[in-house]
Formats: sequence, C-alpha cells, structure tokens
Amino acid sequence: MIPSKNDLENAVNTVSGVVHRTPVLTSSTLNEMAGAQLYFKCENFQKMGAFKMRGAVNAIQNLSDAQKKAGVVTHSSGNFGQAVALAAKNLGVTAYVVMPQNAPSVKKEAVKGYGAQVLECESTLGAREENSATIQQQTGATFLHPSNNLDVILGNATANVELLQKHPDLDLILTPVGGGGLIAGTALAAKYFGENCKVIGGEPFAVDDAYRSLRSGKIETNTSAKTVADGLRTHLGDINFPIIQELVSSIIRVEEDEIIHAMRHIWQRMKIIVEPSSAVAFAAVLREKEKFQNKKIGIILSGGNVDLENLPF
Amino acid sequence: MIPSKNDLENAVNTVSGVVHRTPVLTSSTLNEMAGAQLYFKCENFQKMGAFKMRGAVNAIQNLSDAQKKAGVVTHSSGNFGQAVALAAKNLGVTAYVVMPQNAPSVKKEAVKGYGAQVLECESTLGAREENSATIQQQTGATFLHPSNNLDVILGNATANVELLQKHPDLDLILTPVGGGGLIAGTALAAKYFGENCKVIGGEPFAVDDAYRSLRSGKIETNTSAKTVADGLRTHLGDINFPIIQELVSSIIRVEEDEIIHAMRHIWQRMKIIVEPSSAVAFAAVLREKEKFQNKKIGIILSGGNVDLENLPF
Repeated sequence: MIPSKNDLENAVNTVSGVVHRTPVLTSSTLNEMAGAQLYFKCENFQKMGAFKMRGAVNAIQNLSDAQKKAGVVTHSSGNFGQAVALAAKNLGVTAYVVMPQNAPSVKKEAVKGYGAQVLECESTLGAREENSATIQQQTGATFLHPSNNLDVILGNATANVELLQKHPDLDLILTPVGGGGLIAGTALAAKYFGENCKVIGGEPFAVDDAYRSLRSGKIETNTSAKTVADGLRTHLGDINFPIIQELVSSIIRVEEDEIIHAMRHIWQRMKIIVEPSSAVAFAAVLREKEKFQNKKIGIILSGGNVDLENLPF
Repeated sequence: MIPSKNDLENAVNTVSGVVHRTPVLTSSTLNEMAGAQLYFKCENFQKMGAFKMRGAVNAIQNLSDAQKKAGVVTHSSGNFGQAVALAAKNLGVTAYVVMPQNAPSVKKEAVKGYGAQVLECESTLGAREENSATIQQQTGATFLHPSNNLDVILGNATANVELLQKHPDLDLILTPVGGGGLIAGTALAAKYFGENCKVIGGEPFAVDDAYRSLRSGKIETNTSAKTVADGLRTHLGDINFPIIQELVSSIIRVEEDEIIHAMRHIWQRMKIIVEPSSAVAFAAVLREKEKFQNKKIGIILSGGNVDLENLPF
C-alpha cells in the first residue's frame, strides 16, 4: 500500500535536472516569532512558481512512449494546470487543460503561454470531469489528477527529500493541506529520509475537510470554499488518504486572519512572495507555538503565484 | 583620490561575518525578456532589507574606540537610518537618528525597534542637518552621511565584490543611482575585481541629477522629487562624484511606468520583493535592450523595504 523507499528514489532521479533544486531560507526574525528554528523550502521559486511542477514532471515521465505520444489531460483552475502545461512542453508531450470559463484570464494565458491547449467549460466539477473524459476518449490522452495520483505524490515528495538531505535532523515538517498530494508525498519523504521526523498539516478552518477526515476515518468534503487560501479548497482522495492516515501526526487548523498575518510576515521579513496557501503552515506554527519551542522545523512554502492587483493586505 | 584595492579588501574583511553574504539569483524568463544573461545580487535579503547595512557596518567599525563610545548620528527617512540603528546595535554603539516628523510611523518604529534614539524634526533638509549638528555637539557622536562618506562607499562596494567573486566574467554591472554611494562603491569593486567590467547607472527621469552632473561636470540637484523610486531622490556628493566621474560609463534614465513594469516582473517571475528603487537598474536594461544583447550583466537589487499597503500596482 505505502510506496517504498525505492519508489521515492526513482522519483528523485526522474525529476532531477528537469525541476529546480530550490533553496532553503531561514530568518532570524521569524525564528524569534516562533521560538523555534525554521527552515523554509522555497517551492515558490520552483519552475512555474509551485511544487506542482514536481508531480507533473514525474507523472508524465512515467508514462509509456505510446501514452506520451497521445498526450495528457487535466482540469484545473490553478497551479496544476500550469504545471502540466509546462512539464509537458519541456518533455515534448501534448497537454490539454480543461479550465472553467470564469477562471482569471491571466491564468488561462499562462497555461496557453506554456503551449497547452485550453478547453473552457462551465464552472462546475461535473462539467470539468465530463470535458476531461471527452478529451480522453477523442485523443487517447492520459488523465492526470492534481493530487490523487501516485506518481504525482511521489514527484511532490522530492521537495522534502531535498530538504532532508540538507537538514536531516529536522524534528518536524509542516505543509499546507489541500487535495492531499503534497502532505502525502512529504510524509513519505519524512518516513524514509528523516530521523524520526514528524509531519503535521496546516489547514484553514473554513475548509477543514482533511482534519475531519482524519477524525472520522473517511474522506470528508467541504460545503464552503470561503478561504483566502484558494489552493486548499479541494478534498483528499482514495490514493493519498491511506498514506496520510498512516504517516501524518496531526492537522492544525487556522483562521483566515492568521493566514494573512503569517503571509504578511513572510513577505515583509523574508522579502519573498508566497501565495496565501503557502502561509498556512507557518500560521499553524504560530498558532500552537508552545508545541514547537526550540524544535527544528521544516516548512514547505508550496507556491508563489499571486495576483498582485488583488492582495489580502 | 580613488581608493586602492587594499582599501576595498579591508572593507570586505571588516563587514564579513556581520552582514549577510546575499544570494545571486537568475531567471530564465527575465533573461528572455532582456536578451541577456542577468545575475541579480539580492541585497533585498540583506539584514534590515537593504545594501545600506554594509556601509553602516563598515563606517562604524572604522571608528576609534573613543568615537565608538560617543556614538553615531545620522539623519534619514529611509533605509540608512535603519542600517545605522541595526549596525550600531550589533556593534554595541549608541545611535541617534534624526527623522522628519512626517516620516511613516512604521519607519520610526523600525528604527526604534533596532534600539536607536529617534529625534523628530521638521521635514526640511535644513532642520535635519541642524538637529544632527546639535546632537554631535551635545554628545560627541560622529556624523555618518548615507552616501558621501568613504567608509560607507567602501562598505557598499562589498556587495559587488561578492558578486564578482562568484561571476568574475560579467561584462557589465548596473545599479540604481540616488546619493551615489552604491554606484561609486560598485564601480570601485568592478575596477579591482572585474575583468574589464563596465558600470552603468539607472536613474528616474524625474530625479536625473546624476545624469546631468556627469554631463555638466558639477554636482546638480533636483527641483522635483516626484518618483516612485523614493530612495533615489537625493543628489551626489563631493566624495563619491569624482569616483563616479572616473569609473562609471554612463547613466540610463527611465520613466516611472518603466520602473513599475520592471518591478512587477521581478516580483511576479522571481517571486522576490524589491523596492521601486531596486527595479530601476533592470528597467534601464529593458529600455536600452539592443545595447545589452547576449551580455552577462550583474544587477544589484538594492533593497526590499516596501509598504505592502501602498504598492504601485
């Protein structure tokens, strides 16, 4: 059920040289705020601006030659569409990205700019899935799910492998939790490359499906999507949930104002741009500070794609 | 007249270990935009968020023990006040910073936060100079000018020394031009550590005193201060001007919308926060692109202290 260390090492070899080995930054001011030593893995500096590039590259590389020839399809209004578009372009594969009509035109343009074919549909999950299925039938393209795909999860895991290669003695690693693909990969990397390193998720109260799923033992969904952390509105899937159940210690929920406060401090003190979803893990550390005193903590800054005309401060 | 290589090496030794050795970042997208290879020296990641820390540390370290005991004084509404405050704190020296009453309270708080004594005065250069002189008389503190002080210039130079140690074959280096302390130091470093490396300044049309000074052969001033690049409103001084005259190739002037366009691209594509003044050098490269095709170009990103509530986009 749980992938092996060898599976992870294969993913590391597969993405190496295609994705950036992103830097790990520290800030004495943020360490003081938290009362802990924080190591920020900067996936906001990744190609196309998010860790999603890792999963997309690994998934496409693992297709057969015949599959590669037929192309790949995904539906996304966010970073995964861009990741598939750019990864496919770099690997010489055709990409189809189904996007809701009302997605910001800057996002559609970004996906087109990376050379993918954009297919617009109504803004419902049903319409997105239906359009993706039609493309699969018409072209033979392989569908790539943004988070509930084992190769995507293993690709995502490589960010934390790199972090632990640099700092093997981390006590804890925190990531945001959305669809579960990042935290599942991160937890696998912690299991095989950490020295008793725990993994904790950060999640907005407004979309706390993963928190509730861990309590109920089944995949829960959200009725609202009202969070500034727009990358975290999705729910877990049947491939990543068992990994999360087995390997993730806990999930800390945070309020919207805590997310914005954490994001502002990362921007102001570290001088780097992270998206709201990325600030959720740091917000979780600040919220439950007393748990983390004097610990060595890794934080995956998942991405940096924000609309500069529409900031939350 | 022109400081020696030995003077520069002394400054490198003096600031080493006290200031950050900041990273050099690259961006394939910005390289494509410019048609050149760009190496960004990230002084926005420097302590207190700007290269000014280097000059302040070098100037304070070069004081005699008696001078250190009496403290230092400067007047500033911007980064140099913070730099002197933090450098003095780190070196155990008392700092007095004269600031205009109407300076943003966030800046006053930052200077106080670093432990300096803030003295408020009217918002004229005359009042600032008068108040600084009074403090010198009362306390015996040494006055530190933000840009027209040889130790400050030599300290600033160390950013470019680090850049050239990493990339010795740069054809050109660009910096913004305000009071002249950064470009003078940068030009000294290029002279002694570059391989035939030219230095070019970027300056807003709105405050093009340095451009005019190089043409007229005397220090010119500005009648207006209407630029988004608020760090570049000052004029050259009698210590840095001769260095600039001898060692700087040219100054390229840029429009306000070009500064904002360059700043937006650095934020969006590099995911780092730079202040408007820092974007002026990149704006100059984009404005006169044809000059720079296929060159290897260093750009000093001078600082990252911006008011997130008051961005130009």
